[in-house]
Amino acid sequence: MSPRSSVARRASSAGSTAPESVDLGVLKDMLGFRLRRIQNHLSKNFAERLAGRDIKPGEFSALALIAANPGISQIQLATEGGFDKAALVVLLDDLERWGWAVRRRSTADRRRHALEITPKGEKALAELFAIGLANEATVTDALAEEELANLYAVLDRIYGLCFSDDQA
Amino acid sequence: MSPRSSVARRASSAGSTAPESVDLGVLKDMLGFRLRRIQNHLSKNFAERLAGRDIKPGEFSALALIAANPGISQIQLATEGGFDKAALVVLLDDLERWGWAVRRRSTADRRRHALEITPKGEKALAELFAIGLANEATVTDALAEEELANLYAVLDRIYGLCFSDDQA
Repeated sequence: MSPRSSVARRASSAGSTAPESVDLGVLKDMLGFRLRRIQNHLSKNFAERLAGRDIKPGEFSALALIAANPGISQIQLATEGGFDKAALVVLLDDLERWGWAVRRRSTADRRRHALEITPKGEKALAELFAIGLANEATVTDALAEEELANLYAVLDRIYGLCFSDDQA
Repeated sequence: MSPRSSVARRASSAGSTAPESVDLGVLKDMLGFRLRRIQNHLSKNFAERLAGRDIKPGEFSALALIAANPGISQIQLATEGGFDKAALVVLLDDLERWGWAVRRRSTADRRRHALEITPKGEKALAELFAIGLANEATVTDALAEEELANLYAVLDRIYGLCFSDDQA
C-alpha cells in the first residue's frame, strides 16, 4: 500500500527471471486502461468498506446527482452520470425499494419522470459520501491540492467534450 | 458527441422545469465517479467496435502486458493491471482457449506460471490496439498532446503510489 513497501517488493524480486519493473507496452498510449486499473481498486475497496451491504458505486453516484438536482429526469441522469440506460433502471429500482429516492411524473411533461431524494436518502447519501471520501483518501493524500484540482478539471472537460451527449 | 451538439442540447432545454446544467453535488470531490463515467462510455464504445465478438477490455490489457513482459507471472500481471485475482484467472483461460497466450511453469520457480504471448496473440493484439486507439481518438483529439501526457503521468503516479502493491 505504501511507497516504501513497493520499493521493498521490487528489491526482493531482483534476481528472479521475471521482469523487475513491468512495461506497459502499447498500453502506454491508452487512457481506458489507466482509468480502469485505478477504478478496479477503488470499487473493490469501496465494497469492502460497505462490509457486505450490496450498494454499488453507481447507486451512490445516482443518489448524489438526484440530491444535487431535484427533479432531474432519467435521461439527464443517464447522460451526466455516464450510466447505461438499462443499468440505470435497475439502480433506480433499488433506490426506490430502499426508500432513498422517488420517481414522480413531471408536472411540466407527463411523459418524463422527475427524480427526488427522500429524507431517508439524504441520510444514506451523507453516510456513503463519508465512506467514499475515506475510500479515496489514499489518492487525495498522495496528491497536492492543485494537482488534484487539475486532474478533476481535465477529467470533467473530457467528459463534457466527448461524452455528455450520449448515454453509456 | 461534438461540442457543438452539446451547446445545442443545452440551449434547447432552456425553459423546462429540469435543471439546465447538472450540478455534481458531493461528487465534485470524488475521483471514482469521474473515472467511471468516462470508463463506461469507452467500454461501451469499445464493445460496439468489436461488433459482437466477446473480448473484454481487460483481455486486451492483459494480452498487452504479457506481450511487453515475456515471462510475467500471474501475480505481477494482477498487481500491474489492477485485476481482481479471480477475474484474471477467467481472462487468462480465455486467452489460452483462443490460442493467444500460454501459461508455462517457470523454470526458476516451479510454483509460479510464466505467461507468454503466441504469434496468433501478437496478431490479435495489433488489431485490438488499432481498435483501442480509434476508440479513444474522441478523447485524444480533444486534448493537447502535453495535456494528455500530463494526464497519463498523474494517473500512473496515482497507481504506483496507491495501488501497485495490491491486487484488486
